[in-house]
Order: sequence, then C-alpha cells, then structure tokens
Amino acid sequence: MATTETRRRADAERNIAAILDAALVCFTEEPQASMAAIARAAGVGRVTLYAHFPSREVLLAAVLDRTIAQAGEVIRAAAPSEGPATTALRRLLRSSWHVLDQHRQLFDLAQRELGSPNLRERHRQVVDHVEDLLVRGQQEGVFRTDLPITWLVTTVYSLLHAAAEDVNTGQLRADEAAEVLEATLLQALESR
Amino acid sequence: MATTETRRRADAERNIAAILDAALVCFTEEPQASMAAIARAAGVGRVTLYAHFPSREVLLAAVLDRTIAQAGEVIRAAAPSEGPATTALRRLLRSSWHVLDQHRQLFDLAQRELGSPNLRERHRQVVDHVEDLLVRGQQEGVFRTDLPITWLVTTVYSLLHAAAEDVNTGQLRADEAAEVLEATLLQALESR
Repeated sequence: MATTETRRRADAERNIAAILDAALVCFTEEPQASMAAIARAAGVGRVTLYAHFPSREVLLAAVLDRTIAQAGEVIRAAAPSEGPATTALRRLLRSSWHVLDQHRQLFDLAQRELGSPNLRERHRQVVDHVEDLLVRGQQEGVFRTDLPITWLVTTVYSLLHAAAEDVNTGQLRADEAAEVLEATLLQALESR
Repeated sequence: MATTETRRRADAERNIAAILDAALVCFTEEPQASMAAIARAAGVGRVTLYAHFPSREVLLAAVLDRTIAQAGEVIRAAAPSEGPATTALRRLLRSSWHVLDQHRQLFDLAQRELGSPNLRERHRQVVDHVEDLLVRGQQEGVFRTDLPITWLVTTVYSLLHAAAEDVNTGQLRADEAAEVLEATLLQALESR
C-alpha cells in the first residue's frame, strides 16, 4: 500500500502547486477572483481546492508566503552579508525591488485583505536580512545608530512598499523606482 | 413651512454629527463594530443611520474625511508656509503626528477596509501642505531636488503612517515617534 500512499501524496503536492500557481495569476489579474475561478484555472475541482485551502484568506496567505519565500531566496542570492554594508544594501534594495515589482498587485491585495501588520509579520524572514545588514553597517560605522534599529528596518520596508504603491497608482515609473529607493534610503540611513 | 423645514434640517445635522461622533468612538474601540451598534451608540434608529450613510464603507469614509479635515486645520495652525522650511517641516511633522497618534486605530481600519490608494487620495488636502512646503524648501536650497517631488511627499506620508503602525504593534513608543520621524525625514530630505 506504500505505493498507493506515495502516489496519493504526489497527487496532492501536484494539486497544491497547481492551485498556488493559478491563484497567483488570478489574484494578480483580478483581485476579486472567486475560489471557483481559481479552481477552474488550476484544473481541479472545488472540493479539492477547499480540502487544501479552506478559505480564500488561507489561500491568499499561502500564495503570499510562497512568494515571500522566493523573495528570501533572491535576497540571499544577493549576498547581503558580503562586502561593505553600503554596497550590500544597494544590492539588497535592487533585488528586493525586483521581486516586489513583479508582485505589486498581490501585495496590494494582501495588505487590504490580510492587513498591514499581518503582511509585515509574514515578511519576517525577508525583514531579518534587512535587520542583519543594518546592524552590520552600524558596526562598520556607516549606518546611523541614533534611532531604534526596528525603526530603521521599518523605514526600509515601508519605503519599498510605498514605491510599489506609487508605481501601482502611476505616480512613479517602475524603471526609476530602484534608483529612487537607493538614493532615499542610503541618505536616510547613513551615519553622520 | 420654512420653520418646519429649518427644524428638519437642524435635526438631520444633529443626527449626522451624533452618528459621526459615535462611529469614530466605535471604529476606534472595536473595528468590527456593526451598523446596529453604531446606531445605538449614536442614539438614533437604524433607519435614520442608513438614511444618512447607506453602508458601513460610506460611514467609515465620512468619519475618515472629517478626521482628515480636522488634521488639515491642525496643520494649517502650525503655519507650514511661515519661517525657514526646515523649521516649518519640524512643526508640520509634530502636528501631523499629534493628530495621527490620536487616530492610529481608525487609519489602520481605513487602510484595510478602503485600501491604501483610497486612503492616500482622501489625504489630498493634508498632503498638499506637505508638497507646498517641500517645494518651498527646494527653492530655499535646503531640500533635495534630485528625486521626483511626488516621491518626497510619499516618503513623508508613508513614514508617518509606518510610525503609527509601529506604535500600534508595540514596536515604537508613541512618545518617541515624533522625534524619530523628525530625525529620519530631515536627513532623508536634505539637500547635499
């Protein structure tokens, strides 16, 4: 029976992956997308969808967590713990913006449906990279130490998301956002 | 019949004021407060409540607009167009924070129920004071001119709201927020 069980698990994993892929597309293209539409797009029945994700909120949170985990990979690949802190922050901002820019609509929806504090909490693994880098920069003497470190992390996190919102509303061009963020944050954070 | 009409209007205005007062308290103390609970707190019937505010969203938007109009008064009283721009920005930040701090829960609810872009749009009259002051500071040579003015306004607006969120989640002390905002924004905005 091990084979049947193995097959069942493989089916479930394939269904979950298909649902998450479809949900990301649906939420991005049509924030009000229904669970029925997502099941159709994923090629699964509604019973299967609800068996894995009992509510729209649970599904949205799962899509978000997967996206943030991917962002964590991209940020790790940008090696925030290597080289001078200022240069590492530039790399971190560019890689973070790159991921965020691809998922602006999803984050807008998540902020609205899950709430800002929940959204921030889900970013913990990403935000921890920012905090580690800021602390390192303080030790190197290049980042300011006159303000709480949690606030410096908030400054980075909220300006990144504010830039995404300004791009969504047409106030900022997507292709100038990374440079604008870098210029704003390096000056805001630097030690005097 | 003019007297009857006058009396009817006076009644309606009194009811609207009572509903907005009660709704501000209800939304602040219990974000999930129902329309029935708000009608009770205002001392009006549900029919009267719905006659003036056909939905919870309309009522929340009205409470928010009144609060933002009051914030506009407080900011105008801080005379953002007088004296050196840097000193005026300090005053503007302190007065803005003072109002925002009193209504942190309301803005959190509004962000969630109305969405960030809608919330920002409703702040237009307040945000315009920020923009005018930043432009004046650029002309005086004290604020940076290397980034879009809309982005500088976004920076002020989003860090103010980020501070409110950090106070709500216990990450920042309410009594240190104004000083932290001032230190962050004056450095972020200054001309080099």
